[in-house]
Amino acid sequence: MTIAKTAASGGTGLHPEVLAFTSSLALDRALLREDLVGSLAHLTMLSRTRLIPSEDARAIREQLVAIWKAAQAGTLALPEEEDVHMAVEVEITRVLGERAGLLHTARSRNDQVALDLRLHVREKVAETLEVLATLIEGLAARAEAERGVILPSYTHRQRAQPISLAYQLCGYGAMFARDVDALGFVLQGVAALPLGVGAIGGTSLPIDREVTRELLRFSRLTMNGLDTVGDRDFALDFAYTAMRSLLHASRVATDFFDFSSPEFGFVKLDGEIACGSSMMPQKRNPDVFELIRGKAGRAVGNLTNLAVLVKGLPGGYNRDLQEDRQVLLETGPLLTSVLSMLHLALGKVYFDKDKCLAAVESDYMQATDVAEALAMKGIPFRTAYKATGALVRACQEKGLPLAQVTLELAQSVDARFDAEVLKSADPRRAVERKANAGGTGPASVEKQLVELKSHAARAREMARAIPRLATLFDSLQEAAL
Amino acid sequence: MTIAKTAASGGTGLHPEVLAFTSSLALDRALLREDLVGSLAHLTMLSRTRLIPSEDARAIREQLVAIWKAAQAGTLALPEEEDVHMAVEVEITRVLGERAGLLHTARSRNDQVALDLRLHVREKVAETLEVLATLIEGLAARAEAERGVILPSYTHRQRAQPISLAYQLCGYGAMFARDVDALGFVLQGVAALPLGVGAIGGTSLPIDREVTRELLRFSRLTMNGLDTVGDRDFALDFAYTAMRSLLHASRVATDFFDFSSPEFGFVKLDGEIACGSSMMPQKRNPDVFELIRGKAGRAVGNLTNLAVLVKGLPGGYNRDLQEDRQVLLETGPLLTSVLSMLHLALGKVYFDKDKCLAAVESDYMQATDVAEALAMKGIPFRTAYKATGALVRACQEKGLPLAQVTLELAQSVDARFDAEVLKSADPRRAVERKANAGGTGPASVEKQLVELKSHAARAREMARAIPRLATLFDSLQEAAL
Amino acid sequence: MTIAKTAASGGTGLHPEVLAFTSSLALDRALLREDLVGSLAHLTMLSRTRLIPSEDARAIREQLVAIWKAAQAGTLALPEEEDVHMAVEVEITRVLGERAGLLHTARSRNDQVALDLRLHVREKVAETLEVLATLIEGLAARAEAERGVILPSYTHRQRAQPISLAYQLCGYGAMFARDVDALGFVLQGVAALPLGVGAIGGTSLPIDREVTRELLRFSRLTMNGLDTVGDRDFALDFAYTAMRSLLHASRVATDFFDFSSPEFGFVKLDGEIACGSSMMPQKRNPDVFELIRGKAGRAVGNLTNLAVLVKGLPGGYNRDLQEDRQVLLETGPLLTSVLSMLHLALGKVYFDKDKCLAAVESDYMQATDVAEALAMKGIPFRTAYKATGALVRACQEKGLPLAQVTLELAQSVDARFDAEVLKSADPRRAVERKANAGGTGPASVEKQLVELKSHAARAREMARAIPRLATLFDSLQEAAL
Amino acid sequence: MTIAKTAASGGTGLHPEVLAFTSSLALDRALLREDLVGSLAHLTMLSRTRLIPSEDARAIREQLVAIWKAAQAGTLALPEEEDVHMAVEVEITRVLGERAGLLHTARSRNDQVALDLRLHVREKVAETLEVLATLIEGLAARAEAERGVILPSYTHRQRAQPISLAYQLCGYGAMFARDVDALGFVLQGVAALPLGVGAIGGTSLPIDREVTRELLRFSRLTMNGLDTVGDRDFALDFAYTAMRSLLHASRVATDFFDFSSPEFGFVKLDGEIACGSSMMPQKRNPDVFELIRGKAGRAVGNLTNLAVLVKGLPGGYNRDLQEDRQVLLETGPLLTSVLSMLHLALGKVYFDKDKCLAAVESDYMQATDVAEALAMKGIPFRTAYKATGALVRACQEKGLPLAQVTLELAQSVDARFDAEVLKSADPRRAVERKANAGGTGPASVEKQLVELKSHAARAREMARAIPRLATLFDSLQEAAL
Repeated sequence: MTIAKTAASGGTGLHPEVLAFTSSLALDRALLREDLVGSLAHLTMLSRTRLIPSEDARAIREQLVAIWKAAQAGTLALPEEEDVHMAVEVEITRVLGERAGLLHTARSRNDQVALDLRLHVREKVAETLEVLATLIEGLAARAEAERGVILPSYTHRQRAQPISLAYQLCGYGAMFARDVDALGFVLQGVAALPLGVGAIGGTSLPIDREVTRELLRFSRLTMNGLDTVGDRDFALDFAYTAMRSLLHASRVATDFFDFSSPEFGFVKLDGEIACGSSMMPQKRNPDVFELIRGKAGRAVGNLTNLAVLVKGLPGGYNRDLQEDRQVLLETGPLLTSVLSMLHLALGKVYFDKDKCLAAVESDYMQATDVAEALAMKGIPFRTAYKATGALVRACQEKGLPLAQVTLELAQSVDARFDAEVLKSADPRRAVERKANAGGTGPASVEKQLVELKSHAARAREMARAIPRLATLFDSLQEAAL
Repeated sequence: MTIAKTAASGGTGLHPEVLAFTSSLALDRALLREDLVGSLAHLTMLSRTRLIPSEDARAIREQLVAIWKAAQAGTLALPEEEDVHMAVEVEITRVLGERAGLLHTARSRNDQVALDLRLHVREKVAETLEVLATLIEGLAARAEAERGVILPSYTHRQRAQPISLAYQLCGYGAMFARDVDALGFVLQGVAALPLGVGAIGGTSLPIDREVTRELLRFSRLTMNGLDTVGDRDFALDFAYTAMRSLLHASRVATDFFDFSSPEFGFVKLDGEIACGSSMMPQKRNPDVFELIRGKAGRAVGNLTNLAVLVKGLPGGYNRDLQEDRQVLLETGPLLTSVLSMLHLALGKVYFDKDKCLAAVESDYMQATDVAEALAMKGIPFRTAYKATGALVRACQEKGLPLAQVTLELAQSVDARFDAEVLKSADPRRAVERKANAGGTGPASVEKQLVELKSHAARAREMARAIPRLATLFDSLQEAAL
Repeated sequence: MTIAKTAASGGTGLHPEVLAFTSSLALDRALLREDLVGSLAHLTMLSRTRLIPSEDARAIREQLVAIWKAAQAGTLALPEEEDVHMAVEVEITRVLGERAGLLHTARSRNDQVALDLRLHVREKVAETLEVLATLIEGLAARAEAERGVILPSYTHRQRAQPISLAYQLCGYGAMFARDVDALGFVLQGVAALPLGVGAIGGTSLPIDREVTRELLRFSRLTMNGLDTVGDRDFALDFAYTAMRSLLHASRVATDFFDFSSPEFGFVKLDGEIACGSSMMPQKRNPDVFELIRGKAGRAVGNLTNLAVLVKGLPGGYNRDLQEDRQVLLETGPLLTSVLSMLHLALGKVYFDKDKCLAAVESDYMQATDVAEALAMKGIPFRTAYKATGALVRACQEKGLPLAQVTLELAQSVDARFDAEVLKSADPRRAVERKANAGGTGPASVEKQLVELKSHAARAREMARAIPRLATLFDSLQEAAL
Repeated sequence: MTIAKTAASGGTGLHPEVLAFTSSLALDRALLREDLVGSLAHLTMLSRTRLIPSEDARAIREQLVAIWKAAQAGTLALPEEEDVHMAVEVEITRVLGERAGLLHTARSRNDQVALDLRLHVREKVAETLEVLATLIEGLAARAEAERGVILPSYTHRQRAQPISLAYQLCGYGAMFARDVDALGFVLQGVAALPLGVGAIGGTSLPIDREVTRELLRFSRLTMNGLDTVGDRDFALDFAYTAMRSLLHASRVATDFFDFSSPEFGFVKLDGEIACGSSMMPQKRNPDVFELIRGKAGRAVGNLTNLAVLVKGLPGGYNRDLQEDRQVLLETGPLLTSVLSMLHLALGKVYFDKDKCLAAVESDYMQATDVAEALAMKGIPFRTAYKATGALVRACQEKGLPLAQVTLELAQSVDARFDAEVLKSADPRRAVERKANAGGTGPASVEKQLVELKSHAARAREMARAIPRLATLFDSLQEAAL
């Protein structure tokens, strides 16, 4: 990475417009904590390996700690340098003079940036896991509370089979549970410490990357410096996972967007998440769900951005990579804000139990169940299906929904229909009978709830296992030098 | 669009997190000037059609003008409302009370936003056209100044044919000239006034959209309100044009990235656009060109974002569309900053004439020219090509580049080679002989220069013909009511 | 472009897997007609400028014509060469021997491919314009036929204002009318003849590009060869326009997907476009609309593909560009098949007039109209709005929809309501009153119909003005040599 | 999924154009083996759970086996049905009549398709892992063979530090090693058996999903049917992983594209992977690398396609999802063909050892090493750096590259330079000294080679552990019924 001739490098040769164009400070200011933690660990390693005197290390550490504290207190004013890394350097140099330069022993901005970005992703993954856990727990809890609600399921936006609302909510939960796994993949990728490979080829100084690795609690070292400084796979992985999760959210949002229309009328939105016009107070626009859906676009665009960025770049570091910043820094907040908002909004949506049931009862969605019940009596499946088809047509001619079919009518169609078989035309029974794994029956739904809770618990555990910046800072500010 | 229950609508029922999530003020604050101009025109129309009393119109206008002036003076503090449109409304209401509401007669936020966004795109197109004109003029001027420089052209990054640097620069100019045409297409799309279609179905009040159209200098009205409030084609068009232009810039950037490598060594970067390390002052990293290349990624991502956003939306207005804001507001500055920077940087790149020529003279790129010269003597083309192939091989065996072939050697290969034919082995002659339209010959390049200048002139003219916000404001603040 | 050492270049040095990997024949076989027409024009120019003897030109032309005819007759077996261009060359060489090579005088595969692709885009634009014209005409005709149907318009998938179905259909038409304009932009870009710039720098042979240009009916020449051989803007433009149009189609599709759900029940799909299950014959899944919506994804992906492809390529020709083929060849059929299918499907959708009206009449969407009617009596707007709000609440308390409000009830809320004002609570009146340009009133809709028809007529005219391949072939096979 | 009224459902009500538009047979014909294997497993389960008589199961199995064998023999002619699933059903029905329908007991096309697609992805992952293993092994072997070659590393396409070619190749290997991990993530996602959830809500028949799961060797069941039939995360994961891997390939390709230019001249391409023009036989265009780079575009486009496809879809199955087919079926071959070709091409690239070294020796890339060597003598780092900077300038003034600095010259700059320190100006020494993990020193490279080989071995092991279709077929055709 080029060092701008600003204060840090002792001159200002760059054209001011060029400096403005190439500076990333406005964005990477957000990486200050990551940078300080990374520097503290590097400093500790330099001191322990005797590459720099421990008294110098102590002096530099004091400054790094002071900057952290000023930032926490909101009193930090970073100098206008090319990026946050230079800004910190200049700030320390202001106090310590040339001694500050010792911090940069055996470190290049290439590996320094690679570290800061990984620390950032790790932190954001931890935050996302917490939010995902809350969302999944919320869905599970709501599913438990809404066990009694029966509504149509849809394929092609046509009524398909009666299901329980609990089942619908578990279906959403299943999507987000997969996002926990995907974040696990991100974590695995981000767990290799990049620091110590220098600008590209390594350093000839006898540093010890293992010391830094342990201090920062990474699980392994990156393998090769040329790859390390040009690698943004971890950023792509995080952007991809965010995209996949926001696509999930967009699908849930469409359901609630539709369900809250007067035509469906399945849900009513609380005034806290939607407000009507002054003239029509009964109206509740599902803006929250529309925005959740819309934000999927940003996530797709951001991943595309990163992919285009790295496409065809020569190996090693190229400054193009700095353009990863906006995407990377947006991704965490985008993801956690949408998932949190989805959680909050779902908590303020009320299902109209009667309307849901009415939709089920006015239709013929239980036909498959009737046919299967008939078949279970030993009648060949095709025959059972045909008989049920005839029954449906007979009901339609009489204007009866299937739930109201009489034994008399049924037997006039086919004598093999009996009272037991017709029970399955009751939507509630139709739901109950689907007891297999993955089905809408209560027993199956109970298992799904257990699975969801266990996914949520795993997400919390994963989050807890991630070393957070504040914790690392606390231990590094007192680490033996 | 939902009215948030903030000050403007007399209550704060929305959950604070929901309000934060749905607010676009942080972004659309940038649309303040567009909003004021649009409101002034609407107000004028309402007054002229007698839908509101002219004294009320005058009072409201005073407030709108005051807000504009405060913004210009940097003293404006907008209230924290849901978006800039509400913020302006609240601000006026603070002064005028309920009378302020007259401004919203026969207007909905749906058509208001559609107007503001179009005004914004129009303004940004004007700015871009100016920058493009400057860039194309700069390329043409530089081409004129560098007529004498000969360098290899490349296909597959292999040397292909000798060309003049002027030709190379005209090639870049031709790309950007097409961007002028594309901006013309954007302008055509954005020239339909959306205001006056209300929330979706029109208004029953006797407004006159033609009055507003003339005041804001649009060339036609949008055709149908349902389409108008949900249409973001103009935003897609602008994002697409920006992407295409930044892809052009990325290709130019790659050339200079390569040319400034020590292996090519064709160009040297001025210290104003690149700086070396303290240890190796001769080194000049092409960061500017790398960042220009990298920013193409954002442009592709932004277009993708918009496309994903509108995909599958029901007709009419959906709140998802608010997510167009970030893309739309980023696009103008992204485009003008890259194109300006490319112009600035190209002005600070110095070609090493000798190295360029040496690359040409050490190779066999003129072989086609020799063959064509032979063919023009009446020898069948295939025969001419074969003879030249043999000549190239003979030169290679002797370690001679083609430019140094002797008549003796040539005739030993094929007696039909003569001094006239061999002249075309001189790179400069090879360049000169390509006199056809579109070729690298000087006569053809002159025509290209004329074309480029005329494109630049047209860009400036197009820019001038676009009514700018400041101009519209000036005339609207004094328009007859 | 590299010449593979296959039959055409007299050897087979390439590894078979490499040959398979680099060959584009499987795809560009679809460009045969374009290639033959381009070659015929080039040949004619070469003969007229005396660059090749006219008897040779005649002999070659006979072969080109024979290949065309064999292809039309379905009897052509192209040799397995690297691409269609080589395959044609090999085929002619088989008959004419070395003389066949004269066709390649002053032509490179770089400019040849650039020509073929442009001819292809031009042809596909013509086809698309015809389909668009049919679609727009169909929408206009349907709108005329459905003038009497009243249905809710939607914002946020909430009922917004009563509109006529004609208005809704005109809204769709307005989107596709913009696509006609966008195709005009594509045509403008594709109208520059690339042939004659050789591999990159032009040719030293005295060709006359103007002759070729007139024969192929392009409107201008490309400006600069270096730009020409590397330029794929015309492909991006076409892919973009296709994407925008398919995004439009995706939105229409969502409306019909929703409208055909039992919850909306606004439309019934004919058995020719949808079929039910054997058991539930009344069910009609909107698969056609779902697939139309889904295909927007391909269009976005294809544009992204092209953008990634050209990003960061050095100037001039790079073989990467061959990867444009799949996208380019898919785009035309994708676009015309979706738009045709949309036309066909819309013709087989039946609106349930009564259900549509019932949705309107059971709601309060006319509130704005009532308020505006009151305001037009001279009552301040805010006051009018407040009074109407109170009226709506009064109706709701009584369980009355707004259309059934009585004068008595209204006057009990506010004495200023009168019979005239209440007329606007009739949905049909509410629609009629929106007479302004762009509104749902009948007069405005009539104007929209005229505009749509004129757009369709213009599309047909544009299509007719495009020289088609078959026509060009007819004239070229008899052109003076 | 809608059943088309073709032969299978006993009627042809669909408009022929609609049938053509909605059919996926042309594409999903490629899923025949997956479909047969899935059906065999389902059939076995139905028989074992006594849901269908074992003699019927046996008869159906015979037909499924016959179709597989006919397909293998190339003699299969599938009927023209809507998709491959229907085509197989029709084919069996042709022989067995109504009995064939038993196969569809407790199965819907929704879960059937979900299974076939997962089986497909699993198979393609296995193939890709094999290719990746070969590629990584090839890189490691080549690295071992090229240990002695020293060349410049690049940042910003400027020479950065001397490295060994082995290190460069290990850097590429490190990228592809990460792709092995990513495929592991894909496998994890695809390991849940979808079959058995019916159309959306499960089935009331007493099937046993665990039996099917074991037969097909999945590791778990999908959790919830509503999620299962609408889930395409596994397709997104595979498309993403393919994209990431092809982006890696694009970067390697750019290096070789550059290295093979005459300006770099580091590599020469074998005639088997590149061929010159007839006139310039020395020329070797890197088309293979350009196409490898270009194909990254397709991969990005394909992922975008899928993302757009699922965005905003309602929960459950929607026919839009059928549009996943083209992307999904393209991804495997695209990925394996590019990675195989990269392996093949790298094996036919020859490095010019002398040119590589010359590039290193003519420059000042070892400056950092000299400074670090000086620092290790106890001189403060900043001082050491400054002294080295002065030394570089002194060399440049004398026109000496750093490798040729004399002790005399060095000591005239700063007396602390000594012979030991100057040794590090030897490029080979500079390389050797970077012994830390991740550096270019030989010891570190040895470790990298070990790591690469272990990644390759792991990839092979993962591939072996994946049950392949042919193996599953073999065991299923003889499984107990």
